[in-house]
Order: sequence, then C-alpha cells, then structure tokens
Amino acid sequence: MKEIAVLGSTGSIGTQTLDVIRSHPDLFHARVLCANKSVEKLLRQAEEFHPAAVVVCDEEAGREFKSLYTGPAEVIIGQEGLTEAALRDDVDLVLVAVVGIAGLAPTLAAIGAEKELALANKETLVAGGSLVLAEARKHHVLIRPVDSEHSAIFQCMLGQDRKHIHKLLLTASGGPFRGKTREELKKVTLADAMKHPTWNMGMKVTLDSATMFNKGLEVIEAHWLFNVDYDDIEVIVQPQSLIHSMVEYDDGSIMAQIGNPDMRLPIQFALTYPERLPSPSRQYVNWRDIASIIIEKPDLEVFRSLKMAYEAGKQGGTAGTAFNAANEEAIRAFIAGRISFLSIYDVVEETLSRFISREIHSYEDIMEADRLARALAESEIRRIAPC
Amino acid sequence: MKEIAVLGSTGSIGTQTLDVIRSHPDLFHARVLCANKSVEKLLRQAEEFHPAAVVVCDEEAGREFKSLYTGPAEVIIGQEGLTEAALRDDVDLVLVAVVGIAGLAPTLAAIGAEKELALANKETLVAGGSLVLAEARKHHVLIRPVDSEHSAIFQCMLGQDRKHIHKLLLTASGGPFRGKTREELKKVTLADAMKHPTWNMGMKVTLDSATMFNKGLEVIEAHWLFNVDYDDIEVIVQPQSLIHSMVEYDDGSIMAQIGNPDMRLPIQFALTYPERLPSPSRQYVNWRDIASIIIEKPDLEVFRSLKMAYEAGKQGGTAGTAFNAANEEAIRAFIAGRISFLSIYDVVEETLSRFISREIHSYEDIMEADRLARALAESEIRRIAPC
Repeated sequence: MKEIAVLGSTGSIGTQTLDVIRSHPDLFHARVLCANKSVEKLLRQAEEFHPAAVVVCDEEAGREFKSLYTGPAEVIIGQEGLTEAALRDDVDLVLVAVVGIAGLAPTLAAIGAEKELALANKETLVAGGSLVLAEARKHHVLIRPVDSEHSAIFQCMLGQDRKHIHKLLLTASGGPFRGKTREELKKVTLADAMKHPTWNMGMKVTLDSATMFNKGLEVIEAHWLFNVDYDDIEVIVQPQSLIHSMVEYDDGSIMAQIGNPDMRLPIQFALTYPERLPSPSRQYVNWRDIASIIIEKPDLEVFRSLKMAYEAGKQGGTAGTAFNAANEEAIRAFIAGRISFLSIYDVVEETLSRFISREIHSYEDIMEADRLARALAESEIRRIAPC
Repeated sequence: MKEIAVLGSTGSIGTQTLDVIRSHPDLFHARVLCANKSVEKLLRQAEEFHPAAVVVCDEEAGREFKSLYTGPAEVIIGQEGLTEAALRDDVDLVLVAVVGIAGLAPTLAAIGAEKELALANKETLVAGGSLVLAEARKHHVLIRPVDSEHSAIFQCMLGQDRKHIHKLLLTASGGPFRGKTREELKKVTLADAMKHPTWNMGMKVTLDSATMFNKGLEVIEAHWLFNVDYDDIEVIVQPQSLIHSMVEYDDGSIMAQIGNPDMRLPIQFALTYPERLPSPSRQYVNWRDIASIIIEKPDLEVFRSLKMAYEAGKQGGTAGTAFNAANEEAIRAFIAGRISFLSIYDVVEETLSRFISREIHSYEDIMEADRLARALAESEIRRIAPC
C-alpha cells in the first residue's frame, strides 16, 4: 500500500489523482488531503478517502472545515500544513498539485525527507529549479513529472542514455487561440480564454495555455527536470494533444509518447512508476478515428510568452522566478478584469526588463525575488489600468 | 573495435551497413564480407574494407572472384561459407542481410556461437521463428532487429517492462499501390511494383512492399521477436514512413519511434546498441516541412497478404515456413514474367490451403517444409501459367 499526500486535492489534478487512488484501493491510500479553501469538496473527499490528516491552507476556510468535519482525521490549518504533510513519517509519496509558487516549500520538504515525489506544479521548477534539482541530486530523489509533456519526455528517456539526447521536442496544443492574430486577441474575454480545445484543466493552467505562457513555463521546467540546454528544447504545435512530447537522439531517432488527452494517465504513471496499471479511462487511442496527426509551428510573434521564457531561462538565476511571479500576477489581474488579455504579455515583459536577476543560494533568495517581481508586476498593472 | 561479418554485403542492407562501417573506422571493421554473386561489387568492397575473409555463395561467381581478386583475404566459395563466417572466432557481430531462407542456417550458427546478432533477414524468423527464438533464449543472445519497424518496436521497449505491453502497432507505408483497387492492380508491371514511395530497398523487399506480403512477414517476425500474440499486433498505414512503429502499454501510453526513412539509422543502432552515434545522414527530421503525420487503415480486401499472414502465424508450426516459401516462389515467378501481380496472392493462398503444418523440432524440419511448400507453389504457378 502506497501512502500518498495529495497536496491540492480539490483542484483538477488533485481530483483526478483521487480518481486513480479510488480505482486501486488495494495499492494506494490518500494519507493526507490538502486544499486551499474548497471546504465542501474537501469534506466530501475526507469522508470518502479516510485520510489520517487534512490540511486547509486558508485560515478562514480552515475554521469552517473544523466546525463541519466530524471524522477522525487530524485537521491542520495554514499554509505550513503543506510542508508538514510532506514531512510525515506515514507518507510514502508526495504529490504536489497546488498552484503557483506555493508548491516550492512542500516540494523542498518532500525532497529533504527523501519521499517519492510526483510534481504537478511547474511554477516550483520555474521559480527555483536550480535549488530544487540540487536538493534532489543531494537526496537521490527522482522527480516524477505529472505534466503530460514532461511525463512524455520522462517516458521517452526510459532505458535511454541521456548523454545521447540531441533535442527535446515539447508539444503544445496551441490552446484556444491557436491561429489567431494579435488584432483578434485584443477583445477576448476570460470565458473565451477558458475554452481549451483538448484538455480539461484548472483555471490557472487553462489561462496559461491560452497565452502560451504555459508552454514557456514548461520549457523552463524541462530544462531543469532533464538538464537540457534551452537551445536544444524546441516547441512544436500538435493541436490534437495526441503526441505529448518527444525526445530526439543523436542518431536521428525520435522517441515520442502518444496517448489520449487524459491527465489521469501521467498522474497514474507518476504513482506507479516503473510499473504500469490498466488505462484509467479503460480506453485506448482509437487509430480508426485519426486521419492525421497535425503538426504546426508556434506563432512566436503573437505568443511572445515563449520568447520571454527562453530569455528568462537563459538568463538564469532568479529571472525564472520573476518570469513566473509576473505571470501569476498578470493572470490574477486579467481574471479580476483589471487588464486585457494582451496586457498579460506587456506586464511580464515590462517586469522582466526591470528585474535584475541574481543567483539562487536558498529558498529565501527565491521568495525575495518572487516578492520583488510581484511588486514590479503590480506597479505595471496599475500603470496600465489605474483603478 | 567491433569485428563484423556482413552476410549479404552487396545487397541494399549490406552496402548501407558498409556505409556505417566506413563512417566509423575507429569503431567497426568488416572482418568478413559475404555475397551471392555480385563479383564486381564484392571486389571493390574487398579492396576498400580489407576483410580477413570473403565468402561467395554462388560457385561460378566464386571462381570468377578468385581469378580476379589479388588481395590477402581468404576466399571461401559456397553457401556454407555463410555459416563458416558466422562461426569465426575473430568475428564479434554477425549481420545477417542475405535474402530469403538462406539466412536461417547462418543465423542459427551465430546464435550457437553466442555472437552479437543483427538480423535484417525477416524470412528466417517467419520460416523458423520458434527454433531461432528457442536457441536465442538458450544461448542468451539478444536478437537486434534491423528492419526499421522492428528496430522501432525494440526502441519503444527499452526501459519498459514487457509484461505491460498491450499491443504492437506495426506501421506500413502502404507501398506503391496504396489506395489502388483490385481492378487497377490487374495489369501492373514489375517496373510499377519497384517504385517504392519512401524507402530505397532491395528488389525482394520492394516487391514484398508492393504486395504487402512484407507487412505480413513482419507481423510474424514481430510475434517471434517480441513474444506478442497475433491478436495484439495491429497494422496501420503511415504513408510517409516517419513513424516506424509503436508499442501501446496497458495504461494507454504509446511509445512511438520516429525518424527519416533511412535504413542506415536502424542498421547503425543494431551495431551500436545500447549506445548511439551521430545521425548517419547528418540530418534530422525537419518538423518545419511536416504539416501532418498521415494515418490510414490497411485495405485487407485488396492486400489479402496480411490476412494470410495472421492465419499462417496463428496456425503455427511450419505454416509460417510455407507462407514464406510460397511467397518467395510467387515473387520469383512474377519477376520472371510467368504470373501476374495479383496471382502472387493466389499462389500463396493455394499453397497454404494445401499445406499441412507440422511442429518444428529441428533445422531439418524447417528445410523439409520449405521444400514441400515450394513444390506446392510451383505446381500452382504451372497451373496458372502453363509454360
């Protein structure tokens, strides 16, 4: 029985993780459930999965949960509960599926405690990849990626010698605005941006897919996870989300991982690696319905996010931290209706141009850079939309 | 330095193998060159590669070679020279690239001598797969496939647990007659059949691609090489020959191997496994030129070869031997202008219907079944075209 701490259990990845756990009660148990503030959902999950502990990050939601919950699990309130969950002796595997920079502290804790680690939070690596990977090497922890693209690359490297990698080919669906011009994107709404063509995901990642900042974050994530130079990471658009990514080797041979767009697949593999269980959906790719696998180039003029990601990534140090922080703030401002869709790019671009990158030596270095970048982003958001 | 015996050095696979050897004189040496009767080509190869021995299978060509060759290599004349080459102490790796059933004896010899074995000859496995694989297991010899499809499957299984294989997806280019009706195939000529759209190959395999007997042979080859049930091997058409084959795992994850259609790539990997060298062509897949990877279903009504292969394969025993022998004879008759293109199917079908499959216990069992099937095929060829 593998005892799992699900950090972010009420989010999209979290609920799909619980789907997988539900299907294999003989193999997996959700030892700890952690959520931010979805009290009702968390109550239902606690009732069904009988965790030993429940973490509620938001203080107010935590008090509400405590007043309604009648089960036997320990209830922990506050953000630090995530780290506590990752450190517990009764946990074998920590799945980090919280959104944003909040994933960094529990990820470092899980690595320090030498837990099995399934990482769905890309911001952690974008903001603090150098530190996270140095710790992972020190503690001999293999980070199992949950992102479908990185899970694909991870699978394409199994049994292969990494020294023969020529290039990573990171695929992108292109999101809901694939093929649109800058002009057409001027007036798009939050509702438009939330219509992802292939994946059913949480709000942050869905919006990041619309801007293609998601792919930018993933380029930096791939750099850290697989120790590959930015110049050897190429993004290609595969709108059906069938090819989840590829690895090209020196001899010209490319390994690709293909599958239906179902997040439970990479989640399950992160839990079972190196074993495999039956398909979570009980379905397989139906080749009879596929006439072609479409390949396109990304539009780097419209989706400037990709270019910014490469620049921030190559700059190194805390530039990735700033890239991530500025994007998180810009997305928040877009959701709040403070700035337009296209202004998201401007906010990140302006933040990066004003931010001075420094080397990362500690968790505090990252958090300080994160705060500074958010302040810069906020000042830019105010300049654009004085309200 | 890896000392290689190239069996079939003047054929398409053989010359491309020598291309790879030529590019890496520090790593590979062609210790033995073996050809059937291309004297002139063999003379040039012997001059360039300085082998320790040269085998000429055809007696007359052998005498001609001996009279013209002035170098220091030992010259061996006769079919048995192939087996002798495979058994030599000074050979590390045997590459079997002779055409047809002639590959069986030297393959068994190489296995018995526990050499590294790169197998380009599919007929060997189709005719005697059960014996060859039993010997390979006994002697702990890993057969490295050279066929692009089987090399792809081999690569898609690296680092994976075979017990989690759900299905093999064997890709086919569809050959020059893809999309043609039975009516349209009535009058096709040898020249039409030799126009392969993607691969530059030898005559036998090019014609087998046109009839799709090649894919039938490959289904049986895959069954033996990878120990997968026939019901779990599916053929799909990928006309560009970019995806060379795929393996689907239980969880729904598919690993695919992609590359330019260049036989030197799987040849080189068979020589270097588990290492990889730079691309033999110094080129990589150019994704900017690919708008889509086309997927189609094979036409099982027109290309009955596939159905026959599954039937012969499932029947087991010497049915595969008969399937291969009848096809070799029918192709020979087509080349000689004795029968039409569509009659190739009829000859194999009639042979299989009259052939009684027996269990394989020895090399002799295979060779006897081979002779019997050829006689049945010849009688059918005479019946169709009395000349």
